[in-house]
Amino acid sequence: MTTSCHALGEHGLLARLRARVPPPPAWVVLGIGDDAAVVEPSRGELDVVTTDSLVEGVHFRRDWTRPEAAGHKALAVNLSDLASMGAAPRALLLSLILPADLDLGVFDGLMDGFLALAREAGAPLVGGNLAASPGPIVIDVTAIGSARRRRVLTRSGGRAGDELFVTGTLGAAATGLALRRRYGADDTPVADDHEWRECIARYERPTARLTCGVRVGRNRAASACVDLSDGLADGVARLAEASGTGAVVVPEEVPVHPGARRWAAEAGLDPVGFALAGGEDYELLFAVPPRERRSFLATIRRVKDTTVTRIGRLTDSPGVWLDAQGQGARTPMGAGFQHF
Amino acid sequence: MTTSCHALGEHGLLARLRARVPPPPAWVVLGIGDDAAVVEPSRGELDVVTTDSLVEGVHFRRDWTRPEAAGHKALAVNLSDLASMGAAPRALLLSLILPADLDLGVFDGLMDGFLALAREAGAPLVGGNLAASPGPIVIDVTAIGSARRRRVLTRSGGRAGDELFVTGTLGAAATGLALRRRYGADDTPVADDHEWRECIARYERPTARLTCGVRVGRNRAASACVDLSDGLADGVARLAEASGTGAVVVPEEVPVHPGARRWAAEAGLDPVGFALAGGEDYELLFAVPPRERRSFLATIRRVKDTTVTRIGRLTDSPGVWLDAQGQGARTPMGAGFQHF
Repeated sequence: MTTSCHALGEHGLLARLRARVPPPPAWVVLGIGDDAAVVEPSRGELDVVTTDSLVEGVHFRRDWTRPEAAGHKALAVNLSDLASMGAAPRALLLSLILPADLDLGVFDGLMDGFLALAREAGAPLVGGNLAASPGPIVIDVTAIGSARRRRVLTRSGGRAGDELFVTGTLGAAATGLALRRRYGADDTPVADDHEWRECIARYERPTARLTCGVRVGRNRAASACVDLSDGLADGVARLAEASGTGAVVVPEEVPVHPGARRWAAEAGLDPVGFALAGGEDYELLFAVPPRERRSFLATIRRVKDTTVTRIGRLTDSPGVWLDAQGQGARTPMGAGFQHF
Repeated sequence: MTTSCHALGEHGLLARLRARVPPPPAWVVLGIGDDAAVVEPSRGELDVVTTDSLVEGVHFRRDWTRPEAAGHKALAVNLSDLASMGAAPRALLLSLILPADLDLGVFDGLMDGFLALAREAGAPLVGGNLAASPGPIVIDVTAIGSARRRRVLTRSGGRAGDELFVTGTLGAAATGLALRRRYGADDTPVADDHEWRECIARYERPTARLTCGVRVGRNRAASACVDLSDGLADGVARLAEASGTGAVVVPEEVPVHPGARRWAAEAGLDPVGFALAGGEDYELLFAVPPRERRSFLATIRRVKDTTVTRIGRLTDSPGVWLDAQGQGARTPMGAGFQHF
């Protein structure tokens, strides 16, 4: 027999949650349990704040994704926003909108995934909110980070001539989603396929490039940064627009994940186009002035398990273009994922 | 013909929103438009952070409540949490989960209500998030405020012997909800009834007691405070529990709104019991040491349109009790609203 969240009641659920939250660090003056949390700002630094949500039926399906993965991802997408600003996480708020008949095991799983990543990121959960949902699970997270004033990484600091670098590989998350669409929750068809298992993991449990963002911010080796939540094409367009420049990307240089390359080939799609349009990779896109290139690359090399690839540059001339083999024959780059 | 949010797309909706947000104050280093917002903490003060959501079908119905009122209320319930901590608002984040076919007029109305109250409260909207919903509208707000370390009002500072004071009148919001349940969206039956119109307004457009909370916090005239989101009975129980005391409330002293008194009489309910259990009044409950009473009352008197009533006291003996006419014959006090 299973127990529902309703059976525990709001106070019971809150007590269950509080029992699992580790003692907060010293800068948390007042954690979960009052009308609001009280946090000491980081001395001499600015607050960097962001909010992002995971909605059942839109961003995840309960029959595909384990609750633990959904809890992880809801936090990871927020940490990715902090990473792209060069901010270190400092405090988290969690607003859960849950169907009253939700199985308690799902609640526990969500919290498992959320709290494990929170601990790993050194980000204490200081407060939140529980509400009933007449329909989908909604996981709304607010992340508060901090960074020194002159070390905040924005989208708008890029200049024509800056080189564009992207971390990791692209298209894996889009491939993971495509695999879930084909096979549903059934992991058997991909069990022996390392690349495809990796794609599903990237889609369901993305990694925020926190260390990378924070270190590049501190070194001031990049002029601008954006995280690739909605795909590379979208990220390049946003960074260029905010910086008041154009951009050129050399498609042959785009680091496509091997699983994505295979998926695109099987589906008869251009692998680079697929990787450019596919969202949710949560890699970071940096603009780097040529004189900072060595310092930037040295910084990235010191971050464990992180690769970086130069894929293009910002330009004086407006628009965002693909330049095949860097030969100057330009075609417009498509847009990324639209949430509406 | 009406336009849907879907027709505008995410970028169109964001552009529409940004065009309506006034230029932020100086402490907002980076507002809407990047991966995260950047806010300068208030010098020498602590960050006070809270999040709360309004869910369609749970906290409001689209056929009863104008979008403008829903936008107002989603913010007011968060400002009320800051008020109860003695914190002045400093920055807001807004996460909107919206059905893709939502009429653009509803989006505009939500933003009207939200932004008008934000301006009134001096709280800039610095960031947020738009996502599609497969079902209900969800409005998730995060409010960041600030207060000096020794002036934060918590729930836990009460001591046996402290007197309990409540602002305004109670039961009005519960009556407003009951009236909506009886008459639906039809305002005709209550058009000539000032008291009942007031009850509906209190339910749909509550006022956060911001000035009150901030000034009492600064004067240190209260030992503890909680806002009455889930009713007076719940508020007294939470404050007493957090303070490690019991509490006694004299039912005859509870300031029941005249409309609530009439509604309870018509429904054959005890008006005080109705007011005790009714949530969403968003009044403040203070614990005040007797030696601070004069200073506390003088502070409240200087806040426009605010009354305050002494309703009981914190006690050494545990439990939360009603003491009819203060004669010592105690009956247990019921619980407040449960969200699950």
